[in-house]
Formats: sequence, C-alpha cells, structure tokens
Amino acid sequence: MTKNSSNIMALAPNTSNKRETVCIFGTGDFGRALGQKMIQSGYPVVFGSRSLRTSSLIPKEAEVLSHAEAAQKAAIIIMAIQRQHYDFLTPLAEILRGKVLVDVSNNLKINQYPESNAEYLAQLVPGAKVVKAFNTVSAWVLQSGTLDASRQVFVCGDDMEAKQMVMDIVHALGLTPLDQGSLLAAQEIENYPLQLFPMWKFPIFLSLGLTAFFFFYCLIRDVIYSYVYENKDFSFFLAISIPNRICPVVALILLGLVYLPGVLAAIVQLYRGTKYRRFPDWLDKWMLCRKQLGLVALAFAFLHVFYTLIIPIRYYVRWRTEDRIISKALNNKTDPFNNTNGWLSDSYLALGILGFFFFVLLGITSLPSVSNSVNWREFRFVQSKLGYLTLILCTAHTLVYGGKRFLSPSSYRWYLPNIYMLSLIVPCIVLVLKFVLIFPCLDKQLTQIRQGWERNPRYSEQSNYIINKSAV
Amino acid sequence: MTKNSSNIMALAPNTSNKRETVCIFGTGDFGRALGQKMIQSGYPVVFGSRSLRTSSLIPKEAEVLSHAEAAQKAAIIIMAIQRQHYDFLTPLAEILRGKVLVDVSNNLKINQYPESNAEYLAQLVPGAKVVKAFNTVSAWVLQSGTLDASRQVFVCGDDMEAKQMVMDIVHALGLTPLDQGSLLAAQEIENYPLQLFPMWKFPIFLSLGLTAFFFFYCLIRDVIYSYVYENKDFSFFLAISIPNRICPVVALILLGLVYLPGVLAAIVQLYRGTKYRRFPDWLDKWMLCRKQLGLVALAFAFLHVFYTLIIPIRYYVRWRTEDRIISKALNNKTDPFNNTNGWLSDSYLALGILGFFFFVLLGITSLPSVSNSVNWREFRFVQSKLGYLTLILCTAHTLVYGGKRFLSPSSYRWYLPNIYMLSLIVPCIVLVLKFVLIFPCLDKQLTQIRQGWERNPRYSEQSNYIINKSAV
Amino acid sequence: MTKNSSNIMALAPNTSNKRETVCIFGTGDFGRALGQKMIQSGYPVVFGSRSLRTSSLIPKEAEVLSHAEAAQKAAIIIMAIQRQHYDFLTPLAEILRGKVLVDVSNNLKINQYPESNAEYLAQLVPGAKVVKAFNTVSAWVLQSGTLDASRQVFVCGDDMEAKQMVMDIVHALGLTPLDQGSLLAAQEIENYPLQLFPMWKFPIFLSLGLTAFFFFYCLIRDVIYSYVYENKDFSFFLAISIPNRICPVVALILLGLVYLPGVLAAIVQLYRGTKYRRFPDWLDKWMLCRKQLGLVALAFAFLHVFYTLIIPIRYYVRWRTEDRIISKALNNKTDPFNNTNGWLSDSYLALGILGFFFFVLLGITSLPSVSNSVNWREFRFVQSKLGYLTLILCTAHTLVYGGKRFLSPSSYRWYLPNIYMLSLIVPCIVLVLKFVLIFPCLDKQLTQIRQGWERNPRYSEQSNYIINKSAV
Repeated sequence: MTKNSSNIMALAPNTSNKRETVCIFGTGDFGRALGQKMIQSGYPVVFGSRSLRTSSLIPKEAEVLSHAEAAQKAAIIIMAIQRQHYDFLTPLAEILRGKVLVDVSNNLKINQYPESNAEYLAQLVPGAKVVKAFNTVSAWVLQSGTLDASRQVFVCGDDMEAKQMVMDIVHALGLTPLDQGSLLAAQEIENYPLQLFPMWKFPIFLSLGLTAFFFFYCLIRDVIYSYVYENKDFSFFLAISIPNRICPVVALILLGLVYLPGVLAAIVQLYRGTKYRRFPDWLDKWMLCRKQLGLVALAFAFLHVFYTLIIPIRYYVRWRTEDRIISKALNNKTDPFNNTNGWLSDSYLALGILGFFFFVLLGITSLPSVSNSVNWREFRFVQSKLGYLTLILCTAHTLVYGGKRFLSPSSYRWYLPNIYMLSLIVPCIVLVLKFVLIFPCLDKQLTQIRQGWERNPRYSEQSNYIINKSAV
Repeated sequence: MTKNSSNIMALAPNTSNKRETVCIFGTGDFGRALGQKMIQSGYPVVFGSRSLRTSSLIPKEAEVLSHAEAAQKAAIIIMAIQRQHYDFLTPLAEILRGKVLVDVSNNLKINQYPESNAEYLAQLVPGAKVVKAFNTVSAWVLQSGTLDASRQVFVCGDDMEAKQMVMDIVHALGLTPLDQGSLLAAQEIENYPLQLFPMWKFPIFLSLGLTAFFFFYCLIRDVIYSYVYENKDFSFFLAISIPNRICPVVALILLGLVYLPGVLAAIVQLYRGTKYRRFPDWLDKWMLCRKQLGLVALAFAFLHVFYTLIIPIRYYVRWRTEDRIISKALNNKTDPFNNTNGWLSDSYLALGILGFFFFVLLGITSLPSVSNSVNWREFRFVQSKLGYLTLILCTAHTLVYGGKRFLSPSSYRWYLPNIYMLSLIVPCIVLVLKFVLIFPCLDKQLTQIRQGWERNPRYSEQSNYIINKSAV
Repeated sequence: MTKNSSNIMALAPNTSNKRETVCIFGTGDFGRALGQKMIQSGYPVVFGSRSLRTSSLIPKEAEVLSHAEAAQKAAIIIMAIQRQHYDFLTPLAEILRGKVLVDVSNNLKINQYPESNAEYLAQLVPGAKVVKAFNTVSAWVLQSGTLDASRQVFVCGDDMEAKQMVMDIVHALGLTPLDQGSLLAAQEIENYPLQLFPMWKFPIFLSLGLTAFFFFYCLIRDVIYSYVYENKDFSFFLAISIPNRICPVVALILLGLVYLPGVLAAIVQLYRGTKYRRFPDWLDKWMLCRKQLGLVALAFAFLHVFYTLIIPIRYYVRWRTEDRIISKALNNKTDPFNNTNGWLSDSYLALGILGFFFFVLLGITSLPSVSNSVNWREFRFVQSKLGYLTLILCTAHTLVYGGKRFLSPSSYRWYLPNIYMLSLIVPCIVLVLKFVLIFPCLDKQLTQIRQGWERNPRYSEQSNYIINKSAV
C-alpha cells in the first residue's frame, strides 16, 4: 500500500519546489560521482547499499539505506552495480514493480553476453521499466565537470515516460541525452564505449597495407637494385627518400578511393534505372567511410609536404649539390638555363601547393563544429566541388612531376615502373568516369533518377529505401 | 464532433505512456525518412496519401490512410509535399481546423515565390496553425543519423503552443530546434538551405579582384618588362614567383581591411559623440564580414608560406645558385659576409614566421567550437590584441623585406613600384589611426561613448540602438 | 490581494497560447537587447523604468511602466541595472515577494565585493527568489544573433522552480543553460566573464620563463663566447638561430611536463596503496593544466618547424654554403659521401617530422568539437598512447640530432652544455619511469588500485574520493 502511493506521488507532475528523489544502488566510484552531481543539480539522493556504514566517501547530503528502504523512497533507481551482482534484485521484485530502473553498466568486452545488461535486468525484474543510460559517461567526467570529453548520453528504453524522466535528469545534469529508441538498442549502446575508432579501421589498415606494399616495392627498386647493379649503399633512403615516395602515392590513391564509390554508385543507379534498390553491401560500407579515407589521405599528404620541404636541409642533398657544383667548377662547365625545366619544376610545385591547400580546406570543413555550421548545399559544394578540384590538382601535380620520365627506359628498373605511375591509376579512372558522367545525356538521367524517377517501376516493390547517398 | 474531440485529446498534456500520433502527408523520400525517424523515437506515425497502396518503402509500423482519415488521427500534420500540390488541402480545411500544420518544404531558387511556402499554406488553410520547420534537414541525414551535417532545425510560427509542440518533436528526434520567431521568418528559413556562403561572397570576390589586378600588374612589371628591355623569357614566373608576390600582398591588404572598419567606426563615434546612431550601411556590412575577410587573408598567407618554403627546391633557384657559385669560383672571387644583410634577412624571416604563427592562432580561435568555449573577454583579447599584434608583425615583415629597396630606382620599372610597397598602404593607415586612437585623451572619450555617454543627447531620439559592434 | 493572484496565475503551468510576461528593470543597452530578443521569442515584455518617457530605443512592442507597476505584471523580473543602484528595490520588497529576480549583473574586477551581486540582491529582497543568469552573454551577441561567441548561460539559484523557469527562458532564446547549483555559485559565475584564460596562465608563464632562461643561456654560449674568443659578431643569431634552438628545447621540456604528473601520480598511488587519498595540491593543479601545457608545447614545436624550414633561404646560410663550396673548388678538394652522416641526418629529420605529425594530431583531437565526438576509450587512446609515441619520437629526434656531439668537448663552451642536452632531462626521466611502471608486477598492482583495491583499507575513512585522474 505504501509502496504504491509513494510511487504515484513520485510520478505525478513535479509541482513542488524540489526535484524528485533519486535512488542509487551501489556506492562505488560511479554511483558516488553520479550522486554527488545529482545533489549539485538539486536532486535529493538516497543510496541503497548492503552495508549501512556511511563511508566518508559518500556525499554527506545523501542518505544511505538498505536496498529495499532506499527503493521505496524514489521512483527512479539507478543501478550503479555490476551485472554479475544483479541477482540480489530478485527478492526486491515486488518493491521495484513500476519503478524506473536505470542500467548504467558497461562490459569489459564487446558483445560479452548474449543479451545486453539492460535486457538482462528487464528479464530479472519484469515489473520494472528499464532504461539504459549514462554508460558513456565516466565517473571522472562527472566529478571534474570537464568540458573535454563528450557530454552525450545515449538513452534507450521501452517505456516512453520512463525514458523521458531519465532524459530530464540527463538534461538537468548539463549533459545531452540522445534517444536511441527501444531497449533493443542497449546492446549497441553498451558496445559504444568499448569501440576504438570503428569507422577508421578500414581506412587505416588499407593505408598501412598500401604503405607496406610500396615500401617493399621501393626497397627492391631503389635500394637493392642500386646495391646489386651499381654497388652503391643507399640504405639511408629508408629514412626519408622512400617515405617521401610512398606518402604522396598512398595519399593520391586514397583520395581517388574517396571519390570512386560515388562514381560507382552513379553507374549502378544509371544501370538499374532507379535509386530505390539497395547498393551492394561493400559499396554501402565504402561510402560510409569516405570521410575517414579522405582524412587518412590528408595525413599522408601532410607527411609528404614536410618530407619535401626539408629536402634542402638533408646532408645527402647538400653533399650532392656541393659535389656537383665543385665538379662542374673544376671542369669549367656551366649549364644554360632550360626554360622547359623551369616551367615543369615550377608547375608541379605550384600544383602540389594548391592541391595541398584545398586538401587542408577539406580537412578543416570536416571538423564537426565547422560542418555543423554550414548548410547542406554548402557542405556538398565543399566536399564535392572542392574535393574534385583537389583530386584534379593532385593528379596533375603527379603527372607534371613525371613529365618526360614516363617514356624514359631508365624509369623501369627490373621492369618495375616508378611508383608514382602506379598511383595515377585510381585517380585517372575516377576522373575519366566522372568526366563521362557529367555529359548532359547521362547527367540529366542521373538527376531524374535521384529525384525519384524510375525507368522500370516494378523494382521499387522489392527494394528498401536508400536515398541519394551517392549524391555527395 | 468526432473531429473536435480527437483534437482536444491530442492537445491535452501527454500523460499517457505513449507519445502523440503524428500524421505525415506525402510518402516521398523526405516524408518516409522523417516517419521512420519518428517511429524510432516512439511516435506513432500515420501517413496520409492519395494512393492507399502500402509500398514496401513505407515503414511497416506506420499506417497509410487517406488524407482526411490520417489528419483526424493526429494533432500535428507534417506536409511532406511540394508547394505546387498544396491546393488539395482546400477541401480538407474543416478537418484541418485547429491542427498544427508543419511546412517542411524548400524551393529551388531563392525568393522563388512572392510569399514563403509556409505563409502560402497559412493562407490556404486559415483555420490551421502553421509552423515552419525541418526544411534544413535532408532525408539522408535523417536516415543515416550522421553527425556530420548540421543538426539545427529552424522553427518559426505565429502560434506559440504549436511551435512548442514542434520544437518538442525536434528535440525528441535528437535535433536542435532554434526558434526564429513569427511566420514572417519563414521566407528567410526557406532561403537558408539555398544559400552558398553568403557571408563569404564579398571577401572572396574582393580577394579575387585584388589577385587579378596584381597579377596583371606583376605580369607587366616582371615578365613583359624583362622581355621588352632585357629580351629574357621569364614566363615561368607565372607558376610560382608571381603568385608568391601576389599572395602576401593580398593577405596583408585583407588583414588591414579586417581592422580598418573598427578604426573607422571609432572615428565615427568620436565625431558624432554618441554610439546611439546607426553606422552607415556599408560600414555595418563591412564589420559583419571581418571574420571571413580574416580567414581569406589567412588562406593567402598559408599559400605564401608554402610558396616561400619550396623556393630552394625550384629548378630555377637551384640553377641560379649553381651558376652564381660556379662563375664566382671561376673568377676566383668571394664575397665577405655582410652583417647588415644577415640581420635584415633573418629579421624579416623571423617576423614573417611569428606573424604567421599568430595568424594561425587567430584562425584556430575562430573555429566555432573554440570560440564557443571562451568567454567574451578572452574572445576580444584574442581577436583584438593578438589581431593587432599579427597586423604589426606582418607589416614589419613587409617593411624589413623591402629594406633599402624602397629607395633604389631599379625597384621602379616603368615607374611602377614593387607590389609589396602597394600592400603597405592599408595596414599602415590602420596602424597610424589606431596609434592615434589609443592616445589617452581620445581613448578615454571613446570608452565613455561606448559606455553610453553622449556628447549631445538629442541624437538618441532619432537613432536605433547599435551597440559597440566596433569594440572588437 | 491583486499582487498575489497575479503571482499565482503567472506561476501556474503555461496552458494559454502565449508565453508568460517578463519584466525587465532597466532600459540600458543590455536590458533593451534582452527585451528585444525575448519579444522575438514570443514573450510579452514590460520594462520597469524610473523615467516613463518611451525612448525610441526601447522596442515598441514593449510597455514601459514604473518599477512597481511593471513588477506586478510578471512573475519573473530581470534586473538589468548595476549593483550600486539595487537600493531602490528596498521599498518594493512587498511587491517583489515571491517573484523570481534574475540578477544579470557583472562586476569590473574579480571578487570586487565580499559577496556576489546575486547574494547581495537576495539579502536586499529576502522574499524574492533570486536566480543568477545571463551575465556571460553580451548585449551585442543578443542583438546580432551571432553564432561566434559562446551560447552558454550559467544559471544558479536556491529555488529549484525559479531556476527552471529561468532555464526555460534561456532555452527559448536559443541559448544553452548550464545549471551551476545553488546561489553560492554566483560569485564564480560573476567572476567568469572577467577571467582571461585562467588555465593557460601557468603554462604560458612557465614557457616564457623557460624561454627567457634559455635565451640568456644561448646569448652567453653562442654570441658572447664567439665575440670574446673568436672576435666574431654573431648578433644576428638573435633573430632565428637562437629562437630555433630555444623553441624545440622548450617544446620538449613542456611535452615531458605533460606526462610527468601522470607518472608521479601513479607512483604516489603505488606507494600509498590506495587511490582514495587526495593527491597533493600541486599535483592536482598540475594534472588539470596538462592539456594547456601540451598545446603551448605544440605552439613552440610549430615555431621550431617553420624556423627550421626557412634555414636554406637565410642569407647567412646561403653565404656560408657558397663560401664553403667556392673555397673547396679553389682548393680542388671534394669530400667523399659519409654514409653514417647520411643516416644520422635523415633519421633525425624523419623522427622530427613524425613527432610533429603526431603532435599536430594530438592538437586536433583536443579541439572541443573533436574530443566531443570520440568516446572515452578513444580519447584515452589518443591522449595517452599517441601522446607517449609523440614524446618518444621527439626525444629520439633530439638524441639523434645530438649524435656524436654529446662527447665532443667543443660542445661545452665555458663548461656549458648545448641546450638540447638540457632539454633531454625531463623527457628521459618520464620515459624511464613510465618504462618501469609498465613492468607487469607494478602495472598489475596499479590497475588493481585504480579499480578500487586498497592495500591498507583504514585510509579510506579519512580520504576524499578522487578517482583515477591519473589514468590518462
């Protein structure tokens, strides 16, 4: 009887001058930090604990009671205990009936249990309304009030009202609740804090793979070849010369791979004559990691720029220059100025600088706070128009750098072409395909398809709705 | 009768366990994406459609009814249809009476119609409460839940309660509502997604104009003059040498133009003896685009830095150095070290590096997330104090670079001064005026004026209140 | 009688179609700007003013009444007047009973008065519910609606309901309220807008102190020594050579100091056998400014990079190279290529570039918007793992740069070692200690302690709860 009435009172609209009491089960680090924060925000807090000794660690404004007593004082109970101790709740089932149980727990491994902790809790206490929340916030963030870490709190639950009550508390603590839907989302929410850059994995492994491949390629072509045929020890090329060949090549290939899926998607849509069919899975995943691919490419471009800029400071380069000048002076020989070389050298450097400039601009626009402050048309303009401009500039930079060397036989040691030639394959394919796709006849049809037109409407029935993801 | 009662029920405070039903008119991409998102957030959704065939594209949790039936089920109706089809609503006027109609439409051109779509809707269905919202969100963002694009939803409407209901939905979907006032704001909100960097247009066109002017100026002075008088082909200067003269000049002029309006505003205020009179329109607009001017200047400075750093790698520079050294060696001639040149060269480089460093710092502080985390005094300190420091360093960099060449007649080919001399005009004017303005007698009076003091209080009656915009 | 009823009405839940009337005392810049903004957001606004003349500056939608009349019209009264004029409220005490008074005032100096303005107001009008808010927002931001400055509004107050009402208004104006607890927080909130980078003070002064020390050290060692013993004037070294020695040294020391407190904290915890005892105050403060220390170190590293990259452009360097080549050519002498030197030179440059690359990555991740979008595990990975990688790379860069010179007596002019040797002390201590701490026996115990295990549980009673701040 008392239980129910206290329950009803607590759920009634908050017309009194105080916030509702919140109960916290567990007096560990997280429970105490959350309790402290709630007290600061005006919530009366009562702790439910096995041992009733009031530790000095527990905020002195809070009451410490037995689990059963504490639960009766509040409509919301926060479970700041570990999943393996949830069993003790079974005898409390009657008291917890109708209460909002907030599961804040995390696991040590991704998908550690078959069901999420929150769903397990809901099974244990079927009468309660379980809400998952707060698991992405650390005790340290709660205490220090630091603005550095994320303030987003993912919330999910099956009971809309219970979820709203928890979201109100999240708001009151100065954090940002994000509704993730029903309790089915709990598994994903529990996995979230255990993730380590999931979207970055493919781009980083791909770039490391490319780096390793080109490293051995250059090792054979530049170091071992010289050692075998010319008996010269160029092993110190490993520190700068070879990295500075690999970085631009990987950067350009990755930049090409950023724009390739968009072109492929357009071809798929043109071929199918509809946008209402799901892309193949690999294409979908590829399109979702374009931003990360681009930023990894930018990192390689950054390294290339600095590797290039320190060229004149290198001992090897200074020695070579000195040696050449002295031998020329001793032989009384001067070269005339070659105007074509002047043009080629200045052009490829200028193209490289402009390409890097626009690449940095793309990088800056992909910062969350910048992309949040532009509208959709501006975002597309930067990522698509400026992106293609960057790709064109960087491809031209590599082409002009190659210059006449493409035809020179000395570029093909052991029949291996220089790696910058390999790097041109992907971006040239992308640019040629894109060039074909902007022909009016194809462009017009593609625009129609992306506006919903279907060449063969029967498809739409079997398809799922994937909208112009390839539009960017 | 049924209509009214369902209406009242829906508008009553939400005490049930579920969220209120939302009706969506239109089953196109945007309608479906919004419906899907709403269902995820716990809203029962009912679609109103002309054809009742339930396409597989429509979320299966949603009901599809005729427009009239669907409208009766909900208090909020989202109009996910195009403006040209709004006519069909006229026969539904009775059913829509008192309902909240959310206009989510966008146009293809800025100011396409004389009145905004939302106002047109309000005229068509006078009994309904029209709210403009969601037009800045794309279907793709709704589906992918991506954090990249903006989460801001501009909301406007004449009925406060209807607006609040829509803002609550926006919140529940994890987006950020921004109240823009009455329905009069709809025109601006509809134009927003069609804008392409409106604040950037003037700075970018100005900088392109300056670039074009200085390009032809340098072309005449450096390429054509050499060709005519010395018969030398320096056409390859177009790739790097001339851009590297233009970039610093444009950057310095733009940086001067960032601080000029503040100084002019101070002079206007001192002359008028009050801050309570609106500045001339051009000054107002100029002051509002100072941030963009500064960032464009930073872009040019960035290009200048990289154009300068690759100087020693250029074929022309390497050839020239080699040629000079060899001819000296052949003539058995060595130059003694000139201490003044050592000082001048190192000073202008050091000033340039420091100027660029503070310029980059200014750029970083103007990132939205950084400027959001500093208080007003800190923001002013960075943008004003560090900004003037940057201007002083960059002006000094140019002055020291010029060095003794200002007086050398060879700097005036065809009576045209070198362009770095032209670039000094604006920043020197700004620095001199600022220097005069910080004289105690003027500074004190200016501070008084900015605190609200008026030399001649009669002005305040005819003026609008524009507060110390020039304070930064 | 009338007073009370109007009061009750205003405090009743907002079921009408309009927002509640808000009263603003004071028609200065801030009061008017706030009033204008509130009117835009749908609040009826009434101004309370001594003079009843309706200035054209006051928004025409607002009414201007006497203080007493205006106060009776609203439940919330915003005090847009200065603290020294608060006295006039005393006679209004009866009218203000039960009203929400919002103190928006700021002071001119930190801790100007013994009690905060809001607490003073609460003492003057004991019957009112005082809430502190809006003091961090400037009139200019309110008017221009600019997104540049911070939108955060700190709110505090003793009455929960009054605070909620104010926070609702803050929300409605498109600003972000942050609940700071009871009115005791008002002092801190009032000091906030007067602060100038408080967290940055120690790192900046420390780095300036180190810079000054090393400047004089280098002046003696490099300029005065050469002048005294070799009679050479190297005074121009002050512009670039010496700064380029100081910058990397200060950067490396500061980077070491970023990671030293974490290591010290681990040692303290291991020694005490518990994490439940507060760290010494200096260690606590040191740990809280690690981010700022790191960013200042990055600034010095940035300067070092650009000072290094312009080396080949310097007149002194070009003259020296030329002179050396010519004298070698004249003496018919060529040096053979030294493979070890090639390795050393390329290695230290490569290490420096990689170190700078990871350093920039750390800097980007500490941007608020980026650190907000990563989870706790990712943030720790970047700041801890990548941070130590940066420290190792930068230390190795300095060690390899030193190369064989550590043992050469010419490096010890006047018994003073070269400053890069001094810079290695702190980072080497950090790396050695960290290396010891990751030994399994120590690492396991430390992990246990950080999970709450205590070697000697009696401590926990006397301690405050400080959780693994040293975990990062």
